[in-house]
Amino acid sequence: MEVNNRYITITNHIQGSAKESDFELKVVPLRLSVEPGSSAVILKNLWVSIDPYQLNRMKRYSSSHKTVQPAVRITPGQPIDSPGVARVLVSDDPEFVKDDLVEGFVHWGEYTVVKGGMLRKLDPEIDLPLSYHAGVLGMSGLTAYAGLFEICKAKKGDKVFVSAACGSVGNLVGQYAKLSGCYVVGCAGSRDKVALLKEKLGFDDAFNYKEETDLNSALARYFPDGIDIYFDNVGGEMLEAAVANMNTCGRVAACGAIAEYSEGAKRAAPNMVDVIYKRIKIQGFLAIDHMSLHSDFLSTTTDYIHNGKIKVQEDISSGVESIPSAFIGLFRGDNIGKKIVKIADE
Amino acid sequence: MEVNNRYITITNHIQGSAKESDFELKVVPLRLSVEPGSSAVILKNLWVSIDPYQLNRMKRYSSSHKTVQPAVRITPGQPIDSPGVARVLVSDDPEFVKDDLVEGFVHWGEYTVVKGGMLRKLDPEIDLPLSYHAGVLGMSGLTAYAGLFEICKAKKGDKVFVSAACGSVGNLVGQYAKLSGCYVVGCAGSRDKVALLKEKLGFDDAFNYKEETDLNSALARYFPDGIDIYFDNVGGEMLEAAVANMNTCGRVAACGAIAEYSEGAKRAAPNMVDVIYKRIKIQGFLAIDHMSLHSDFLSTTTDYIHNGKIKVQEDISSGVESIPSAFIGLFRGDNIGKKIVKIADE
Repeated sequence: MEVNNRYITITNHIQGSAKESDFELKVVPLRLSVEPGSSAVILKNLWVSIDPYQLNRMKRYSSSHKTVQPAVRITPGQPIDSPGVARVLVSDDPEFVKDDLVEGFVHWGEYTVVKGGMLRKLDPEIDLPLSYHAGVLGMSGLTAYAGLFEICKAKKGDKVFVSAACGSVGNLVGQYAKLSGCYVVGCAGSRDKVALLKEKLGFDDAFNYKEETDLNSALARYFPDGIDIYFDNVGGEMLEAAVANMNTCGRVAACGAIAEYSEGAKRAAPNMVDVIYKRIKIQGFLAIDHMSLHSDFLSTTTDYIHNGKIKVQEDISSGVESIPSAFIGLFRGDNIGKKIVKIADE
Repeated sequence: MEVNNRYITITNHIQGSAKESDFELKVVPLRLSVEPGSSAVILKNLWVSIDPYQLNRMKRYSSSHKTVQPAVRITPGQPIDSPGVARVLVSDDPEFVKDDLVEGFVHWGEYTVVKGGMLRKLDPEIDLPLSYHAGVLGMSGLTAYAGLFEICKAKKGDKVFVSAACGSVGNLVGQYAKLSGCYVVGCAGSRDKVALLKEKLGFDDAFNYKEETDLNSALARYFPDGIDIYFDNVGGEMLEAAVANMNTCGRVAACGAIAEYSEGAKRAAPNMVDVIYKRIKIQGFLAIDHMSLHSDFLSTTTDYIHNGKIKVQEDISSGVESIPSAFIGLFRGDNIGKKIVKIADE
């Protein structure tokens, strides 16, 4: 049997910001069969995650390309792999059989052909929407969990600041931190987001960074006793202001730098005198290094969701053709919570 | 008995670079007696350490002032405390008696009156020049040791870069790293210093940063396999270049930022995309947090010196009146090795 596989690709390497014309929808025929001995799996994609880090992969050059497999450069015309949820259609891999539901790296498209890819069978005991495995129970959730608990060693009483706090990772960092007895303030880019953080997600406070003329004094106002942990999703001036307001032995989890992804963007220049005298640790990290936390993370988070202690924030678009605008929207702050695209009915 | 205590102080808080007119020699009478019950100790200073960090204390404002006691702001007219070596003249502290030799915080002057200060009796078993306790066996040595082994977890095979490598801390970092089986490259500001690093101190390589037009490609040349550890004494552009050339899981010990101490200096803006994807840790630290390493440090270092494995580099001036020029010279890179001033014969 043969289908038409519709997928999104880039037409060229991206310079500066991403725009619609950088993307195209390709349609290529795909035979739904695998060679015996190939270990290949063909997936029907159900949900795909839309993440800012993909912009680095779309550039001609980024220092990220050389580091880990999921960060390698995307070739124009080729499918774009991305965290997602899928159903197995055909499998020559003994680990998977037809109709298995899996989580892992799929394509921004309708089908994925995987050989020895990073796939994990979903636990059928987890009685939660499938889409959660592309976000809160997937890489976004593990990123928040590892960064907060492993990199920053969050503990009761810590004063925690989160940037891009309505984003896929940020909103979970804040919720985990609150559940651990921390004081939590988030920043976001609109009044609606600020209201959501304070009224629904339980943050102690939140502010709209676009309404602040001086980030340094904004943070001094929200953290009269200083910041112990800064979970950084943005880089740039916010990182500088956070370091200036940190307490002795403060910890920065460097998770994302969305303010610095566009070419020519101003890079953070945190005051090194602060870093030295306050013995601040700034630590970059990736969730994939922390798979040893995965089962803890999954059971803790599943419990929290079942008990209503974590509110899941999803921002859903539909159809493979909506991927480019969903992605571009990330950089305008359009999304509230985890941006995912529904590719097909379950 | 009364003496004239001659000491160095600042005439005003310093803006920009320090110059001779920012300092004056004060002469005040001092009675060599202590009130019973006061716990006071009067010291005759023998050797005082001259360190760049004092510039931050001389400013009207520095974020360092609020962090730890040895970093508090200096008041014009008052004595300036500093690591050093001294002999006890009079003591009401039961821990010390007349003629004890001590190491700790003394003044940039001929005498120090201390109450509950940070003093430690010298171990009479250590048969090495007294001046060493103001440098290699004092705070400079512990800083190098703690930063390299505790903060950066140096191990055999690590590729280590040290800036200000002829300085009091840098030269020891390089020597410790070589003794641990690392590949070590240092940078310094003159050809003589580069020669010293390579020919006397055993560095694998060294370069004069003033002769490099592009620090990034200089480091790429000296580290074709990347940098695992950067011991940062300077901040600024060198830190940016080191981060750009770091390997996955690289570690930066943020020890000093001499390039950023002067007002208006360009601050380091390390690429956060590198920090994240290469999972780089940038960690500020101070030796005083690592006193638990002190006895290890002292016995290891003493052994290395006795066996000729560590070459001690001292740069000595004489007399209290030479302190201002010794200090100002640090920022011109005049010193080769530990800058100390001999105040009195032992």
